[in-house]
Amino acid sequence: LNRRLAEFGTTIFAEMSALAVRTGAINLGQGFPDTDGPEQVREAAVRALRDGRGNQYPPGPGVPELRTAIAAHQERRYGLAFDPDREVLVTAGATEAIAASLLALVEPGDEVIALEPYYDSYAASIALAGGTRVPVTLRPGGGRFSLDLDELRAAVTPRTRLLLLNTPHNPTGTVLTREELAEIAKLAVERDLLVVTDEVYEHLVFDEGGHVPLVSFPGMRERTVTIGSAGKTFSFTGWKVGWITATPELVTAVRSAKQFLTFVSSGPFQYAVAEALALPDAYFTSFLDDMRAKRDLLASGLTAAGFEVYRPAGTYFITTDVRPLGESDGLAFCRALPERAGVVAIPNAVFYDHRDQGAPFVRFAFCKQTPVLEEAVSRLKSL
Amino acid sequence: LNRRLAEFGTTIFAEMSALAVRTGAINLGQGFPDTDGPEQVREAAVRALRDGRGNQYPPGPGVPELRTAIAAHQERRYGLAFDPDREVLVTAGATEAIAASLLALVEPGDEVIALEPYYDSYAASIALAGGTRVPVTLRPGGGRFSLDLDELRAAVTPRTRLLLLNTPHNPTGTVLTREELAEIAKLAVERDLLVVTDEVYEHLVFDEGGHVPLVSFPGMRERTVTIGSAGKTFSFTGWKVGWITATPELVTAVRSAKQFLTFVSSGPFQYAVAEALALPDAYFTSFLDDMRAKRDLLASGLTAAGFEVYRPAGTYFITTDVRPLGESDGLAFCRALPERAGVVAIPNAVFYDHRDQGAPFVRFAFCKQTPVLEEAVSRLKSL
Ligand SMILES: CSCCC(=O)C(=O)O
Ligand SMILES: CSCCC(=O)C(=O)O
Repeated sequence: LNRRLAEFGTTIFAEMSALAVRTGAINLGQGFPDTDGPEQVREAAVRALRDGRGNQYPPGPGVPELRTAIAAHQERRYGLAFDPDREVLVTAGATEAIAASLLALVEPGDEVIALEPYYDSYAASIALAGGTRVPVTLRPGGGRFSLDLDELRAAVTPRTRLLLLNTPHNPTGTVLTREELAEIAKLAVERDLLVVTDEVYEHLVFDEGGHVPLVSFPGMRERTVTIGSAGKTFSFTGWKVGWITATPELVTAVRSAKQFLTFVSSGPFQYAVAEALALPDAYFTSFLDDMRAKRDLLASGLTAAGFEVYRPAGTYFITTDVRPLGESDGLAFCRALPERAGVVAIPNAVFYDHRDQGAPFVRFAFCKQTPVLEEAVSRLKSL
Repeated sequence: LNRRLAEFGTTIFAEMSALAVRTGAINLGQGFPDTDGPEQVREAAVRALRDGRGNQYPPGPGVPELRTAIAAHQERRYGLAFDPDREVLVTAGATEAIAASLLALVEPGDEVIALEPYYDSYAASIALAGGTRVPVTLRPGGGRFSLDLDELRAAVTPRTRLLLLNTPHNPTGTVLTREELAEIAKLAVERDLLVVTDEVYEHLVFDEGGHVPLVSFPGMRERTVTIGSAGKTFSFTGWKVGWITATPELVTAVRSAKQFLTFVSSGPFQYAVAEALALPDAYFTSFLDDMRAKRDLLASGLTAAGFEVYRPAGTYFITTDVRPLGESDGLAFCRALPERAGVVAIPNAVFYDHRDQGAPFVRFAFCKQTPVLEEAVSRLKSL
């Protein structure tokens, strides 16, 4: 095994999902819903299949219908203008978008700053690109994991090439505020950094005002690669349709890596996602309301079960602290939990370079049916 | 753009397909059929979609049904035994299999030997892995492009890590003979090399005896990663379902890279391809007979049009020499051909490090409907 990959074993998701299957535990580990998305979107995929749309290689940048729908979505939600022909690239989910962006934009030896804890593919993609990762730790306090802007500023060196951001943030559920985003943007401009920002939970922001794209701040349009995805918003995570929006230059660079990772992807699903993105606002609102109710249910349940709960402002994950339960090692806790209580969760420690910082934190996904969440809570209360 | 990628622009396929769209020319460039595969396979995908199989993240190694079907296929066709749980990995097409294999198995500075001309992702994947590519050129003669085994032997150095092979061979249509494969195997064992072998055209071998997997030779089982794919065999190139078969150790290594490129892929299509692999022999035979007839049609047509034709023993590509037409530069020829004759073809030169070696060669795909091939031939005759 290549040395750059040696530190990365199997993803925690594979380990914990296998454990869920083996023990029959309720899987609140990996972030996928237990109910498929709208029938009408599924039937759009069936129509594409039967009409022979996308059954052969789609165009490298994605089918025009989807690129147009992505641009229209950015305009409708955020008033952002992207040229569907030159500023949109369809990818095999956000994971490929991250890998391709880093492989394209990072030179061996470049430093990449990422907010710790981070989704495990961030670290691996930085390593594959030959970059050096520089974690800036989100610190718990006041019921939230927050970014210390001074720490972020101090992490920038002359070798920093790129900020790899994520908001809403997995696993902590933090949504960077408008003020935090403005400061990050100022720093990126001042120090002339590229920014890759993973915003796949953009439709899962629970507070007033909703999601604010980093690219909308002054000076960011020319330096930002924004990553979006259909999986989380339309509840078809298995289809693997993601995308980036960026300048023509950045899109061309990322595409030059992407074309050698998968060439193209997800033919017929591209057409279905194009239709999904045009769903009326009512879809997005009811999806959000539903997830908010699930968040509230699981958050109170976990509190009642004795966890300290960081109530998420976004994503479909709740980070908890297990110390009130008399535990200190979240990884050991998660490995034992399926047997002890019939529930699978994810130890945040695996998303940290500074593992000790993440040791007591454990993440639960709430994108599950209400009775499933209720049953999980009742099991956890018996801990 | 990252320096390692700087030499790779847009793939020739994107350039030529865009040209086909712009000019309305007949596209005999990229290798995808103009007729979708069996209705029953397509309907299997519809059933998976509607039953909710694969709409959420499938397991990292691929769904068990597909892994079992791949192992059964290797057993039924070749008498090769692979453990579906530990020796099969599903990928986002062969392109991802190639990228993940090289990223996993090649260290910066390692030499990788590949048969030139090669499909362009080979060179890019070697570069992304930080390896050095060492081309061994297939030389035209006797109506075929042949491997010079002495050249291959001479190319191996103490730094050679891996042979990257492809049989049936794109773009030349060469099928390595049993004797050539035996010699390659002997060399790999002697020099303790890993072998990654792209055999996606395994069901497109036109001569008696059919495809012979390199892994079936003595000493190869433990050192070979074999790449297969549904796209070419079942005529659904847009679904992007590929796989590797290899030892548990090699599968684990490749998976550790794959999981960070796309995580998982093609959910519902995995179930459909599982059904496709179990189709009766009659399907494979009639697919092959049909393609053989198309090969013969296009080969005679191109000969009649004045090209020198290398009649392929495998794949769905014909390589020609344009010098009998008074041309010498295949790239210029291909760029002009859509306007001149309303046909798109691929210049083999782009698949060479030694471009001069490939200059006069031009590739035509024949995986198209008979009237389309007839029309293309009639246009080319007017050249
Ligand atoms: C491909 S896993 C993506 C992220 C996620 O679903 C999770 O963190 O659980
Ligand atoms: C992804 S392109 C794969 C190879 C092919 O189809 C071609 O060479 O035309």
